[in-house]
Amino acid sequence: MVNDELLFAPEGADSEGREAASGSPWKVLVIDDEEEVHVVTRMVLGDMRFEGKPIECLSAYSAREGFEKLRDSKDVALVLLDVVMESNQAGLELVHRIREELGNHAVRIILRTGQPGQAPEREVITRYDINDYKHKTELTAQRLFTTVVAALRGYRDLRTIERNRRGLERIIHSSRDIFRLQSLPDFMSGVLTQLTSSLSEEPSSFYAGVSGIAAANGGDHGYQVYSATGRFAECARHSACEALDDTTRGAIEKALATRESYFTENSFVGYFRTPQGAESVFYVQDDRVINDLDRSLIEIFAGNVSIALENIHLNQEIVDTQREVVLTLGEVVENRSHEAANHVRRVAEYAACMARLAGLPEEQVAMLRIASPMHDVGKIGIPDSVLLKPGRLDDAEMAVMRTHAAIGERILSASTRPIMQAAAIVAGQHHERWDGAGYPRGTSGEDIHIYGRIVALADVFDALVCRRVYKEPWPRDRVEAHFREQAGTHFDPRLAALLLDNIQKFYDILKAWPDVVE
Amino acid sequence: MVNDELLFAPEGADSEGREAASGSPWKVLVIDDEEEVHVVTRMVLGDMRFEGKPIECLSAYSAREGFEKLRDSKDVALVLLDVVMESNQAGLELVHRIREELGNHAVRIILRTGQPGQAPEREVITRYDINDYKHKTELTAQRLFTTVVAALRGYRDLRTIERNRRGLERIIHSSRDIFRLQSLPDFMSGVLTQLTSSLSEEPSSFYAGVSGIAAANGGDHGYQVYSATGRFAECARHSACEALDDTTRGAIEKALATRESYFTENSFVGYFRTPQGAESVFYVQDDRVINDLDRSLIEIFAGNVSIALENIHLNQEIVDTQREVVLTLGEVVENRSHEAANHVRRVAEYAACMARLAGLPEEQVAMLRIASPMHDVGKIGIPDSVLLKPGRLDDAEMAVMRTHAAIGERILSASTRPIMQAAAIVAGQHHERWDGAGYPRGTSGEDIHIYGRIVALADVFDALVCRRVYKEPWPRDRVEAHFREQAGTHFDPRLAALLLDNIQKFYDILKAWPDVVE
Repeated sequence: MVNDELLFAPEGADSEGREAASGSPWKVLVIDDEEEVHVVTRMVLGDMRFEGKPIECLSAYSAREGFEKLRDSKDVALVLLDVVMESNQAGLELVHRIREELGNHAVRIILRTGQPGQAPEREVITRYDINDYKHKTELTAQRLFTTVVAALRGYRDLRTIERNRRGLERIIHSSRDIFRLQSLPDFMSGVLTQLTSSLSEEPSSFYAGVSGIAAANGGDHGYQVYSATGRFAECARHSACEALDDTTRGAIEKALATRESYFTENSFVGYFRTPQGAESVFYVQDDRVINDLDRSLIEIFAGNVSIALENIHLNQEIVDTQREVVLTLGEVVENRSHEAANHVRRVAEYAACMARLAGLPEEQVAMLRIASPMHDVGKIGIPDSVLLKPGRLDDAEMAVMRTHAAIGERILSASTRPIMQAAAIVAGQHHERWDGAGYPRGTSGEDIHIYGRIVALADVFDALVCRRVYKEPWPRDRVEAHFREQAGTHFDPRLAALLLDNIQKFYDILKAWPDVVE
Repeated sequence: MVNDELLFAPEGADSEGREAASGSPWKVLVIDDEEEVHVVTRMVLGDMRFEGKPIECLSAYSAREGFEKLRDSKDVALVLLDVVMESNQAGLELVHRIREELGNHAVRIILRTGQPGQAPEREVITRYDINDYKHKTELTAQRLFTTVVAALRGYRDLRTIERNRRGLERIIHSSRDIFRLQSLPDFMSGVLTQLTSSLSEEPSSFYAGVSGIAAANGGDHGYQVYSATGRFAECARHSACEALDDTTRGAIEKALATRESYFTENSFVGYFRTPQGAESVFYVQDDRVINDLDRSLIEIFAGNVSIALENIHLNQEIVDTQREVVLTLGEVVENRSHEAANHVRRVAEYAACMARLAGLPEEQVAMLRIASPMHDVGKIGIPDSVLLKPGRLDDAEMAVMRTHAAIGERILSASTRPIMQAAAIVAGQHHERWDGAGYPRGTSGEDIHIYGRIVALADVFDALVCRRVYKEPWPRDRVEAHFREQAGTHFDPRLAALLLDNIQKFYDILKAWPDVVE
């Protein structure tokens, strides 16, 4: 997956990562109780460079001080360590503390001893996790230089794989979030967050430099912006690409035209297309150059995004089909009509709108939206002579007609699926009244399920605002007056108030799904 | 995610991985044109051990030979490299070839020169990617020992992170497969494959030692085995845990009882439970000890399995609900009945069975199974006086009755969803006849969609084998005679033959979903 070449590409190039770009030096910590050792070491390493970066010499004069310095800065590459300081074994003991207590296995440690007798070479190199053992006497300037270069090289190799390993860990972590089945908007924004933060090893500090935008083909007029961060943040409010500068728009349009993802020096444009033809684009722009490791990790992540997107669209297709089956069958049962009108669809939308206004959780809103078109399924059991009678029903006919609520509840409650259970509640309770004068059970107040109370309002609203065989559409003021009057008698007063306060929303639904039949 | 401690845990313990377990030595390659150097080096390193493992000295006498040895064995830890061999720079050139041409950045290289003039130290250590530079003269036995230990330690550190990095890569790769939405059986077997192979760095050689089993709660009688490998392979055919030995059964039952995953010395028992309560168990057993790295990787992978399982169950719930909605509404429309009978469900099962026998791809089989319960939706447009008439219909009534095919097609074809399109085809064509004498269009032969030809058979079969208002169930021989007679006139002769050849399957469906209403 990640190319091995890449792992070890020369540090001078852009594969060196953020550290190189920022030119931060290699930190070498000298721990020694003789001031002269510090002076000499600084002299030798002072103008030395490794892989284009300078050396920064830090000093500690005891094992304790050295430990504290290492504890406080994690990025020391090399420790040049004396043995005899506070005690004869102070340096050796420090080796253990660095590896075990601090858990720092990356820093290279070179032991420099002035009294080899205190630390016999063979025993020390075997027992302690050090990376070289030197007698101070043998350390000429040249030997010190060689030793430091070799040690920094070892540290660099470890850091390179480790950076790669951490990148893979981040991908696993990020992918976990995006692989959870979720709504498309949540997914788009989640991917964008992961992409922008994936460009940063330390998200908090670096995040600010990354800007991103997530768009997908939405409906009739081109592309919709689902999420945007950094300098694009404003676009998220506009939901359209118009707010973007020409370069960014050009980049997105290029991906759409070529149907391919691509990198520029400092940006990634990810193009995704599901087998069903749904397209999405993610554009991530960085203040800095995107290096080879970043690219490779982004490519792996993009592979996961592609699968997750397919899953979401696959799932959405099933959900949408289910909804359409319910709407179609609900409508034909409602009307015994050859054509599907929009009554049950409007009731579904009114009910969902009302449920949201009433503060129901989104999953109940979605449930009610799917289930409510089945509210009149019981009409299947009503004879033509009653159901299709053009004039007013007499009392006996009305009694027959009213059985549809109980019939529908019985049909639907045969299933244990949550949606069917919700539909059974709606079918059975949408003719109950707040004051207890409804049917089939005559329950009242909050004993009527909130789904039933909501659909009661939605069903009556639609009957009033539409033309029916026996009536013209009512004017808006008469509709409003009716709900004011019936609040607390026919309808839950809190829901009726919500309807009245937001009545335009309901008229908008009527406008979106007009009464095509009749 | 992966604990840093773990990455660098002491090699002696079980974290050392497969290499240690197999006791394979550290390979050190001496490349030198002087035989004496080889002899001395072998003498010094001969009985040396590092991290409990011995050193194996390999010899090459020229840069070319050294290159070939390194090309052929990837696991050389350290090269002790002479400079002057075939040419004055032969050793230095080899360094470049090792790093660039072979792409081997892990092997540690120590340059040993007898003629420092040919390879000035400062230039060499800077320009060449080597890990130490030594004059042969300074290499006493003790110094050589120290240098080799330091180099092996560096190699070990690199290998440890690298092993971890590769493990993460494998997880990303494996997870991609399991995150694709798929059927539960395919998923269970996919997870098992990934789990067993994840225990092996070289799947081919090691795989044989790993056995696994995947089970989930299935239906009424306990647990069903979905997949099994290695010594459990036989269980897959039995689909039940009875074939397992006591230890394995005990391990699985413990996970089910405690609802927790756990490790033993050489096995992993993964317990998964979705929020909807679906439980799965994966049991993987290894011939060897499962080390800490394995555990940590398996834990990460198990986190992904858990999410993927939730997705699959979530998706399945929607699919099942959709099917139930269609069945319920299809049935009530069919019968205008207060209760749902099983006619449309049986037609769906007959049709799916026939589609599979006819060799349709599984996705079309599934499509037809969902869509076919809507075949008579057009009956919603038939008046009670015709639809519910107890006796025979007269010609005029029959003409009205026959409009249900076209009505159904019109209702359903309003939607562009594939399932609705399939349902429209079924509704519009299930009364066409092979000989062209059917309705509404009188199309014939293969001009009738295969869905229509299949449902025609299924619908008639159900009418013959069940009691209807106007007839008793026909005996089996009469049913068979009818299909033999009507093959090539009413029915597609190939499909009729398939029905006759497999008629027991269809009677089994009738038995599974009896005619409860009437």
